[in-house]
Amino acid sequence: MRKKGIQTNDPHVQALARIVGGEKSILYKKEDLIAYDCDGFTVHRHLPKAVVFPKNTEEVAAIVKYCHEHDLPFLARGAGTGLSGGAIPLNGEVIISLVRMKRLISVDLENRRAVVEPGFVNLKLTNSISDRGYYYAPDPSSQYCCTIGGNVAENAGGAHCLKYGVTTNHILGLEVVLPNGEIIEIGENGIPDPPGYDLLGLLTGSEGTLGIVTKITVRILKNPEAKQTVLAYFDRVEDASQAVSDIIAAGMVPAALEMMDQTAIEGVEAAAFPVGHPKDIEALLLIEVDGISAGIPEQIEEILRICRNRNVREVKVAQTEEERARWWANRKTGFGAMGAISPDYLVQDGVIPRSKLPEVLKNIQEISKKYGLRIANIFHAGDGNLHPLVLFDASKPGETEKALAAGSECLQACAAVGGSITGEHGVGIEKKEEMRFIFSDEEILAQTDIRDVFNPKNLLNAGKLFPTPGRCVEVKKEKKQKQLL
Amino acid sequence: MRKKGIQTNDPHVQALARIVGGEKSILYKKEDLIAYDCDGFTVHRHLPKAVVFPKNTEEVAAIVKYCHEHDLPFLARGAGTGLSGGAIPLNGEVIISLVRMKRLISVDLENRRAVVEPGFVNLKLTNSISDRGYYYAPDPSSQYCCTIGGNVAENAGGAHCLKYGVTTNHILGLEVVLPNGEIIEIGENGIPDPPGYDLLGLLTGSEGTLGIVTKITVRILKNPEAKQTVLAYFDRVEDASQAVSDIIAAGMVPAALEMMDQTAIEGVEAAAFPVGHPKDIEALLLIEVDGISAGIPEQIEEILRICRNRNVREVKVAQTEEERARWWANRKTGFGAMGAISPDYLVQDGVIPRSKLPEVLKNIQEISKKYGLRIANIFHAGDGNLHPLVLFDASKPGETEKALAAGSECLQACAAVGGSITGEHGVGIEKKEEMRFIFSDEEILAQTDIRDVFNPKNLLNAGKLFPTPGRCVEVKKEKKQKQLL
Repeated sequence: MRKKGIQTNDPHVQALARIVGGEKSILYKKEDLIAYDCDGFTVHRHLPKAVVFPKNTEEVAAIVKYCHEHDLPFLARGAGTGLSGGAIPLNGEVIISLVRMKRLISVDLENRRAVVEPGFVNLKLTNSISDRGYYYAPDPSSQYCCTIGGNVAENAGGAHCLKYGVTTNHILGLEVVLPNGEIIEIGENGIPDPPGYDLLGLLTGSEGTLGIVTKITVRILKNPEAKQTVLAYFDRVEDASQAVSDIIAAGMVPAALEMMDQTAIEGVEAAAFPVGHPKDIEALLLIEVDGISAGIPEQIEEILRICRNRNVREVKVAQTEEERARWWANRKTGFGAMGAISPDYLVQDGVIPRSKLPEVLKNIQEISKKYGLRIANIFHAGDGNLHPLVLFDASKPGETEKALAAGSECLQACAAVGGSITGEHGVGIEKKEEMRFIFSDEEILAQTDIRDVFNPKNLLNAGKLFPTPGRCVEVKKEKKQKQLL
Repeated sequence: MRKKGIQTNDPHVQALARIVGGEKSILYKKEDLIAYDCDGFTVHRHLPKAVVFPKNTEEVAAIVKYCHEHDLPFLARGAGTGLSGGAIPLNGEVIISLVRMKRLISVDLENRRAVVEPGFVNLKLTNSISDRGYYYAPDPSSQYCCTIGGNVAENAGGAHCLKYGVTTNHILGLEVVLPNGEIIEIGENGIPDPPGYDLLGLLTGSEGTLGIVTKITVRILKNPEAKQTVLAYFDRVEDASQAVSDIIAAGMVPAALEMMDQTAIEGVEAAAFPVGHPKDIEALLLIEVDGISAGIPEQIEEILRICRNRNVREVKVAQTEEERARWWANRKTGFGAMGAISPDYLVQDGVIPRSKLPEVLKNIQEISKKYGLRIANIFHAGDGNLHPLVLFDASKPGETEKALAAGSECLQACAAVGGSITGEHGVGIEKKEEMRFIFSDEEILAQTDIRDVFNPKNLLNAGKLFPTPGRCVEVKKEKKQKQLL
């Protein structure tokens, strides 16, 4: 095979290629870069300057140092499944792809920890340790392909986070390349709650704006001795919502407590994993309990009783592991399934106090009517984490804008009842203006001040997470600086 | 009664008195200030300039603004039960005591939240909601008098944090007065994992160096349906340690899993709540499981089986709630009980990987021999959070210094096996130099940079949490600043 070498005169590309060991670890031609112009949020597209594929922390640090010294914008990317545009190269960034850093470095069963590289795929961790009776809890629906590095950046959640918590609850240590190329370790030995400021928590969910994670120590859990799964069909969405409240009020903490509405059911039944859900029900609940065997039957009985009290049409318990797996495949591929009933769809992600569920679902129906766009709901009902899916057709002029406006109004409806604009998908570029729904100027300033400490040149993933500062923020910043003189 | 007015010409004291509404809300005479010269860490003592008692957030903000404008050092104080000196006025601070801000503002059972002022006593929250079937999980041993504001500052733990997590896992929202007097709300509606940087996590456990918390939204939990408690006596400490490992390895997560060694047992049996523990055993375990009733007996059986496998001398299950309460009173007053067998004692607080328990306990015995000081161990064995209690007599010349050195060596022993220098008591002034055991200069600098963002004049609780910067840190800081020019 003929060695072609780097076919560009761009000195930055040549220098970056030297750092990562040549042409096989860098992309720089337009036809190659197109695949990196967006992530799971496809509404905005921008070409990166180049994509580099480092093999280890030292290469990441060298790339970052080079970018820092030459004022090149840069950002890190995992599998690119993020739903809020966090990995989109808005400013023609150098993309540092971490997919080649995909080793499972170590597993320590006795102390319940594993150490992985950021490009290690989420589900592979559970697959690597399940035969010894352990698993990794955070389970975003994209877990078969998303990376743990990306999960850390977005503080990813998942169906089972009701009982087990989101990614931040499972991160024990991080190795991080700071935006100037320095390498630091946080909680390096995987001891929970290390002294000093909670940098672990700060980095987790910082959406790639404070540093690049190059090694991750995660908590692993013992498989629950038993689990059982219930599927419940409701004629009225209010009854399903009430059943959710009743289950929580009974003091149970199911491992998962998911809801789908009628439009969502239409979608999943038309897609790859149909279950045979009736299409004329307003809502279904998918409920899973796990733990030691002894307590499970009593909890299932209680859940069945609650569902019947709330006028459930039909309720059943999974009879085999295969049936359970099929119900979950139907649920976990639910977002993509909307493609079966609509050319395009926009996933939203808001959080509300559980008690406001019926009210907000009604508001979302009204938003749907107002814009003339169908909105499906598939979501983590147990923790009040809504996922309205706005169905639209991007080929119709103006419909993308309408879908974005409808999605934003859904978030406003969440914020209005004391909720939040994202549960687990992050802010990225998608929702940065919506941050104003819940944060004052001072509160945004307190955060951008922190970003400036880590990322003073703002070369790392700029233009994400925070709204464009208004004049009043600038004035406050000047005033603050003056106070210090 | 004669109105005396403020009896000092100090204009700052007069101004502060005006802010808080007069002489009844300020202390400034030396005889009154002595009570505030230390907290639960009694080795260092310093007089504050004054102690003010604000009644609300606005008064706190006005005091802070005044201090900020007049360059007066200041710090916040709750009940003063902290064990690492976080509330000691090293620099003659104005102490802002939050004990009058002690309201339970609201309870929202449906969404499992309560809002409290920072001076609200920890145990009062559980007492206020237990008749409705709820409780607040973090239970430091001082919970009958420590305040939730102080718990937030120190990220306090407790015996039941093995299953339920430490304070940071239960904080949903904070109102904070920043060091310049601005008021911000973080996660104001109690939605978990709000977007943007995790300021909730950053503030929680920041030991009063980033801001003053004036309102706290906490998660409340439903009382477990049932709980049972086991007391197990072991002839050999290695067997007790192994039983701890076996219980965790069996996939159980007890609500609490506590250990006491022989010296500790001698202390608690000589103090206020003796249980009748045999004095010739090397260790006891106090184990509690909770949850739905159905699973409890099986878990207890499994625990008894494990203890017997590990040569337990005697093991018993609490037969009545009264017996259980007595066992816990014996454990929770354990630190103070050391006063019954030693004139003085120093509590240490380290964390180790659970698998290193036997090794580190042995090292602590050697440290005890080396210094000729007895060291008792009462601790959260389930999560590897050790509490060596160094017994000494401060009236003997040089013995305080020896005790401090022995305590520091215990921490070094924890760090040496990949552990940490504090589990739940904080760094304060006690352990700031020990931070070097686990953090590099870069890692400390990353943290002090964050402090400087919030607290740029370093008037708020200065000289805590981080080691005195060495010359190399200064050089790095200069270099970093130069890079930005």
